Amino acid sequence: MAIPSSPFSDSSARLDAIARGEDSARDWLQACLSRIEATDGAINAFTARTVARARAEADAIDAMRAAGRPLPPLAGLPYAVKNLFDIQGEVTLAGSKINRDRAPAAADAVLVQRMRAAGAVLVGALNMDEYAYGFTTENSHYGPTRNPHDPTRIAGGSSGGSGAAVAAGQVPVSLGSDTNGSIRVPASLCGVWGLKPTFGRLSRRGAFPFVHSIDHLGPFADSAALLARVYDALQYPDAEDPGCHARAVQPVLPRLAPGTQGLRIGILGGYFDANATEPARAAVSAVADALGASRTVEWPDATLGRAAAFIVTSSEGGSLHLPTLRRRAADFEPLSVDRFIAGALQPADWLARAHRFRRRYQERVHALFQDWDLLLAPATPVPAPVIGTEWLDINGTAHPCRPAMGLLTQPISFAGCPVAVAPVWPEVAQGMPIGVQLIAAPWREDIALRAAVALERAGIARARCPNSQDLLP
Amino acid sequence: MAIPSSPFSDSSARLDAIARGEDSARDWLQACLSRIEATDGAINAFTARTVARARAEADAIDAMRAAGRPLPPLAGLPYAVKNLFDIQGEVTLAGSKINRDRAPAAADAVLVQRMRAAGAVLVGALNMDEYAYGFTTENSHYGPTRNPHDPTRIAGGSSGGSGAAVAAGQVPVSLGSDTNGSIRVPASLCGVWGLKPTFGRLSRRGAFPFVHSIDHLGPFADSAALLARVYDALQYPDAEDPGCHARAVQPVLPRLAPGTQGLRIGILGGYFDANATEPARAAVSAVADALGASRTVEWPDATLGRAAAFIVTSSEGGSLHLPTLRRRAADFEPLSVDRFIAGALQPADWLARAHRFRRRYQERVHALFQDWDLLLAPATPVPAPVIGTEWLDINGTAHPCRPAMGLLTQPISFAGCPVAVAPVWPEVAQGMPIGVQLIAAPWREDIALRAAVALERAGIARARCPNSQDLLP
Repeated sequence: MAIPSSPFSDSSARLDAIARGEDSARDWLQACLSRIEATDGAINAFTARTVARARAEADAIDAMRAAGRPLPPLAGLPYAVKNLFDIQGEVTLAGSKINRDRAPAAADAVLVQRMRAAGAVLVGALNMDEYAYGFTTENSHYGPTRNPHDPTRIAGGSSGGSGAAVAAGQVPVSLGSDTNGSIRVPASLCGVWGLKPTFGRLSRRGAFPFVHSIDHLGPFADSAALLARVYDALQYPDAEDPGCHARAVQPVLPRLAPGTQGLRIGILGGYFDANATEPARAAVSAVADALGASRTVEWPDATLGRAAAFIVTSSEGGSLHLPTLRRRAADFEPLSVDRFIAGALQPADWLARAHRFRRRYQERVHALFQDWDLLLAPATPVPAPVIGTEWLDINGTAHPCRPAMGLLTQPISFAGCPVAVAPVWPEVAQGMPIGVQLIAAPWREDIALRAAVALERAGIARARCPNSQDLLP
Repeated sequence: MAIPSSPFSDSSARLDAIARGEDSARDWLQACLSRIEATDGAINAFTARTVARARAEADAIDAMRAAGRPLPPLAGLPYAVKNLFDIQGEVTLAGSKINRDRAPAAADAVLVQRMRAAGAVLVGALNMDEYAYGFTTENSHYGPTRNPHDPTRIAGGSSGGSGAAVAAGQVPVSLGSDTNGSIRVPASLCGVWGLKPTFGRLSRRGAFPFVHSIDHLGPFADSAALLARVYDALQYPDAEDPGCHARAVQPVLPRLAPGTQGLRIGILGGYFDANATEPARAAVSAVADALGASRTVEWPDATLGRAAAFIVTSSEGGSLHLPTLRRRAADFEPLSVDRFIAGALQPADWLARAHRFRRRYQERVHALFQDWDLLLAPATPVPAPVIGTEWLDINGTAHPCRPAMGLLTQPISFAGCPVAVAPVWPEVAQGMPIGVQLIAAPWREDIALRAAVALERAGIARARCPNSQDLLP
C-alpha cells in the first residue's frame, strides 16, 4: 500500500508558518483560488466562490500578523462549506433549484462564524445531493460532483463537494453534514479525513435542515492533525440551538498525545463484514493490524437500526418539504422526490416506532462501550462506483447502488456515536481510496481522533491528492 | 368564599408528630385504611390495596423511631399511586383489562422507590383512564371514579383515582401522571393540590408509558406545604432514564420563604379566558387579587399547541399499543380505542410537523418568562361535570365534554412548563372546587410552589374534604 506524497499534506505546517509570519494568508488563498480555477471544471465541487470575502478575510489575517497581534488558531486557513450552510449575502441552495428563490442569508451559520472567529478564510460553497437526501452527489440541477481520483466515478454524498474539494487540493478543509453517512461516504470515496461528531455536539443553527433528529455537522480535512484542530475550533455549546446538547467545549488537541495506547479496539463483524467487499475488508485489516486489534465485535441490531434510520429520514425530511412538494414536485431532484413524498405519507406509527426503537437501540449500542473504546468498520462497502451506476453486487447480493453507499454508516449515526473516517488505499482497490470508520462512544471524539492521528503518523491512513494533470477538464 | 376546615389539613403536622415520636406510622396507616374501607365503595378510587406491604413499611418506620434512629423526610406518610406505577409483586394495570395478563412487576417504579426511601407508606393503586388516555376516569373496565364532593360527578382524569383518594381523605398524598392535563384536571375537579413538574424533571422508569415525548409524573397532596415536601423527596437525576433530563436535585423547601414577593405575575388572557366559564374566571380572579396580579398576558399559539399535542398523543400512544390493537381491539376502552387506531395511522407528516412546531412553540413560550415569573390560568374550563356528560357549553360554544377538560392544560404541558394547581372554591361554583394553574418557566418548580404555599397560607386556595357521611356508599 504505497502512498505517494500529497501536495496538501503540509497544511498544518503552512498554518504554523502563517502564525510565525513566514507565509501569508493571501498567498495560500491565491494558491487555492488558482487550483479551483484550474480543476473545478473537471470536478464540479463548487457552486459559488466567495472571492471578495475570502480576500478580505485573508487580508485581515495578514494585517493582524503585520500589526504583531496574536493570531487565532486557524488563521489563514482556506476552507469551503457544503451549500446548506448559511453564508451572509449568499442564497443557501441546499442543492436545490427551488431554494434559488430564497433571500440571501442575513448571517453566517454558527459554524461559519466559528471558523471566521478562528481566522479561517471562506472560499465558497460546495455541491451536494439536493436537500442532503442522497449518497452520491449526482445532483440533477447542478451536475454531479466528480471523484478527483477518477472523474468517471462519484465523489459520494451528500457532502460530495466537501469531500472532492479537499481531495482535489482545492481547499485543505471543508464543512459538511452527515445524517446517515453524508460526511463519511464522501470522505471514504474521495480519500480524505472526515469527522461526524456525536449527535448534538456541534451547533446546527444557520444550516439548512434535513432530518432534525439525526442531522450532524462536521469537518473534512487533508490531514488527521488538521481535522482535530478544526474540530476544536468548531466546538461551541450553543444555548440558542435546542438541538445542541453539548454542555462545554471539550478540546481534543491536548488529549491526542497518548495515541492508541491503552485503547480496547474491536472490529465490527457480522453485518459490517457481510456488507463489505474485498477493498473494504482490506482497508479495515490494514488499520486493525496497525492498531493491534483482532477481536470481532457484534454491533446490535444493525439492520433494524438502518431500517429505522430510513423511516425517520424519509418521514421527517418529507414532512419538512411537504408544502413545497405539493406546489413544485416537478422541481425536485428526480432521484429523491418519490422518497420524500412516500416518507411524509407513511403511517405515523412507523415514525413513532422508529423513535421508540432508537431509544432501546442507543442503550444497547452505548453499552458496547463498557467493553470497547474504539470500533472499526468500513465506511462504504466499495470504493467509488462509476457515476450513474444503478445496481451493485455485494458478496453476491444485488443492492440498489445509491442507498447501498450508506449500508455501513447508517447504523452508526442512528446511535449518535462520533466517527472519524481514515482514508486508506488498499492495493486491491487499484489506486482508489476507501475509508475506515473509527467509532467511539458518544462524546468521545477525542478517542476517534487519537486513533486517526496515530494512523496518519504511522502512514497507514493518509489523504491523497491525484496528480494535477488528471484534474484538468 | 368560605372554606370549612378539612380533616386532613394537618398532614404536615402529623408527619412532624411522627418524627417527634408523638404519633405512629401504624396509627396513621390504620386511619387511612379505615377511611378507604368506609368510603371507597362510593368513590371507587382504589383498584388494589397493598395492606401487608403498608403495614410492613409503617412498622419499619415505627421501629426506626423506637430505636432512636433518624427518620427520613416523609417517614410514616401514607400514599397511593395511579395504577400505571410499577409496584413490586403487583400487576401494573394502567387502567386496562388487557394488562391483567401481564406478570407482576419485578420491582417498584423509581418514584415509588424514592417514596419508600423517604419513609412513605404505600397503601395501594388507584383508578385511571385506560392507558392514561382520557380526562374523566370513566373507566369502562373498573368503573368510574366518583368525585368526593359530589359522587354523581367525574373526578377528572386520567389520574382520577389519585385526585379523588386525596380529596376523600383516604390518603394525604398520591402520585399520578400528566401528559395533557392528567394531574391538573383531577386536582382541579377534586379540589386538591397537584404538581406537574417540568418535562424531564422526574424519572419515569417503571411507570407504564403513554406518550414518551410528553409524559410527566408528579404528586397530589392535601396541602401545598406537603406537596413541596413530597416533590423534594421525588427528585432524582436518573441517568438510566433517557427521558430524565434533570442534572441535579434542586430542593424547593429552602427556597419557599420569600413567598410571592418580587415575582412578576401575569394572568393568561385570550384563549385561556375564552375557554373559561364563570367559576374558572372567579377562581383566577381570587388568586390574582391575592397575588396583586392584574396584567393580562398572551400565551403564544395556544390553539396550535393543543392541536399539536393531540397529534403527538394519538400517534405515539396509538403506535405504542398498535400490536395489541391488532389482536384485541375489542378489549380496549370503548371511549379511546378509535383515537388510538386513528392516531397510529395518520400520516407521519402530521407527527413530524407537530414535533417541529413544538420546538418553535417552546422557544416562544420560554421567551415569555423573560418578562414574567409566574402566569395564572384556570386548570379546567368548568367545575366537575356529571358522569356521562357528552357535550359542554363553554361561552356559547358546544364542546365534546371529555376532551374539553384539557382545553386549558394541554397548551401548557406541550411547552414543558412546571405547573402547580391551587384548589379554589368560588361561590359561583356552589360548593364545587376548581383549580388555578400556577405556571412557571421550565426548571422553576420553586416559583410555582412558592406561590402555592403563599396562597395556602393566605387562605385563598385550600384542599378540602367533604363531610364523611357524604362519602358513605
